[in-house]
Amino acid sequence: MKAPLSPGSRIGILGGGQLGAMLAGAASEMGFQPHIYAPENNSPAFQRTELSTCKPYEDLEALARFAESVDVLSYEFENVPIEPLQHIEKLVPIRPGISALKTAQDRLIEKRFLQNVGVPLAQFRAVSSSDDLAAAVHELGLPCVLKTRRFGYDGKGQVILRSASDVPTAFEALGGKPCVLEAFVPFFAETSVIAARGLDGQVASYEMALNHHENHILKTTTLPSGLPPKILAEATFAAEAILSQLDYVGVMGIEFFVSGTSEQPSLLVNEIAPRVHNSGHWTQDGAVIDQFEQHIRAIAGWPLGDGTHHSNVVMTNLIGEDMNAWLGFVADPSSRVHLYGKGETRPGRKMGHVNTLSAKT
Amino acid sequence: MKAPLSPGSRIGILGGGQLGAMLAGAASEMGFQPHIYAPENNSPAFQRTELSTCKPYEDLEALARFAESVDVLSYEFENVPIEPLQHIEKLVPIRPGISALKTAQDRLIEKRFLQNVGVPLAQFRAVSSSDDLAAAVHELGLPCVLKTRRFGYDGKGQVILRSASDVPTAFEALGGKPCVLEAFVPFFAETSVIAARGLDGQVASYEMALNHHENHILKTTTLPSGLPPKILAEATFAAEAILSQLDYVGVMGIEFFVSGTSEQPSLLVNEIAPRVHNSGHWTQDGAVIDQFEQHIRAIAGWPLGDGTHHSNVVMTNLIGEDMNAWLGFVADPSSRVHLYGKGETRPGRKMGHVNTLSAKT
Repeated sequence: MKAPLSPGSRIGILGGGQLGAMLAGAASEMGFQPHIYAPENNSPAFQRTELSTCKPYEDLEALARFAESVDVLSYEFENVPIEPLQHIEKLVPIRPGISALKTAQDRLIEKRFLQNVGVPLAQFRAVSSSDDLAAAVHELGLPCVLKTRRFGYDGKGQVILRSASDVPTAFEALGGKPCVLEAFVPFFAETSVIAARGLDGQVASYEMALNHHENHILKTTTLPSGLPPKILAEATFAAEAILSQLDYVGVMGIEFFVSGTSEQPSLLVNEIAPRVHNSGHWTQDGAVIDQFEQHIRAIAGWPLGDGTHHSNVVMTNLIGEDMNAWLGFVADPSSRVHLYGKGETRPGRKMGHVNTLSAKT
Repeated sequence: MKAPLSPGSRIGILGGGQLGAMLAGAASEMGFQPHIYAPENNSPAFQRTELSTCKPYEDLEALARFAESVDVLSYEFENVPIEPLQHIEKLVPIRPGISALKTAQDRLIEKRFLQNVGVPLAQFRAVSSSDDLAAAVHELGLPCVLKTRRFGYDGKGQVILRSASDVPTAFEALGGKPCVLEAFVPFFAETSVIAARGLDGQVASYEMALNHHENHILKTTTLPSGLPPKILAEATFAAEAILSQLDYVGVMGIEFFVSGTSEQPSLLVNEIAPRVHNSGHWTQDGAVIDQFEQHIRAIAGWPLGDGTHHSNVVMTNLIGEDMNAWLGFVADPSSRVHLYGKGETRPGRKMGHVNTLSAKT
């Protein structure tokens, strides 16, 4: 039995973006001292902490000093390089653990893991060459989606194959890297569950919410989703099975496709993110304990919050030029605006988000 | 017409306690860069910001550098020394302004101001000597309360005069400092309104809440207060008159005594605090925009939040040894725990607070 970390303990976070910033804010409000480690100067999260280190992840000496100075170490993004972490894992508890990172960093490992858990999943095939691709397309049929195994996000590193003529060039077009081919899912909705698992194995999930993407980037998350209770329960069940099978500690975002019809919907797991998740930002203003505090609670060995929401929420991302409208959102009395302190507005860059509340239904 | 401060602007805060820390947290979440200035090493607020200055308020050079580096300057406590502020007031907008501070720092000036505003108030007399006190007691009657004009808080700097034998020694017992004698108010409840006024004169108040003190220190704040709507409206009206008359910008806590009977209650203003207030901590988890964001919105020239609460809340302070029970509060799914990162637990020291939510009634 591991004791919960006492207030005043130090929480190390790898990554200095808005997720790291909001994790640091939550940790401070709980009485912890956050320490952000990130390679980029002007990382937004640096603004929110007394303790920060600006060094590459591969600087093993700096990383070890950081690891020894904190009581637990976590991260805000799933592409943390594994080797440096292995170098420090004897120095400090890393939560979620390295095996969760390895699983989430490689789509093939992730899909095989999910298959073993037994959650519903689109059919897939490993693809290591153009020949593999041709054979896999033959098995799964068209349309289908080719994705690189590593470093894909926001629609990058993937291509839809619609006709036979797309097939010969697709593998090389993605750089000739190891890929996964997925059967195309005719979904009518995308959703996600934000789930957490504590150090004692306790699991708590927020209700599944509805996500709307524009240009492959999350634009809005809506709670409630409008999906029937049976599907919400299935999603929670799947999420909790995933976390338990990974012996996971922390918050995870699990994305789903909803196929079938709105009367007879069915779920497929799309992918998992071993961290707090953009589609969970609604929890900041819609639940007593938000995903950021929930993550810190989990990695600190504290009891989890229960995930109940007190309001309906629509979360809207402010992307690129959306930022220009910030003052309009600020003036809406049912909204709370969260801005990330990023100096420069660029197309596709997440600059902030807005939670708009209404009475719970 | 003053333009609202853009995201990325710097917010300077004098004072490094928990109120400064929570103001810094709110400012960061809004996309501002907070800068804390405080004389004490290990100020809790230092943990929450990249930018901090640890210097005495009387170090005019350091204070001027600080003032020039920020876009607006505010404070977390009412006993900021006035002279250094006057030295820098041409360098940066100070909000709330110096006149609000002067008013709140001296009970006599404060009471005369409140009298001019026309809000209901216990009778009072200025007392500068033991002879003054004898004369004032003769006019106001016993029991009554003698308070130093300056630097009183949490019951310090005051004494209740119950019988004629208490009178001759009371003035000297408080150090022979300028005092105010107040008629004793037979109140059955203590309450407060957290009100805000924007740069454009817009005013927004949270609903009046019920305060319970132990050993002169706030122990709980309860919303709703259980008081009739008429009294709630009177309190809001009084609060808004006070802020407008002061040409105030920012959040203020206004404390009231409720006398009469619960069927026929009547209000008297007790005192004002020109800052965010412990009795407003419930807003962190009970309202879309909390008092800390509301204060930052006001001093930044942003539109105010509307003050509506979405839940009932009981706020409980963790004072001294109460802190030992932190884990029990963390385990309550309807509660959110806020801890201040203070290293040492001391009797009477505010270590944190807990907001316990229930459905709005």
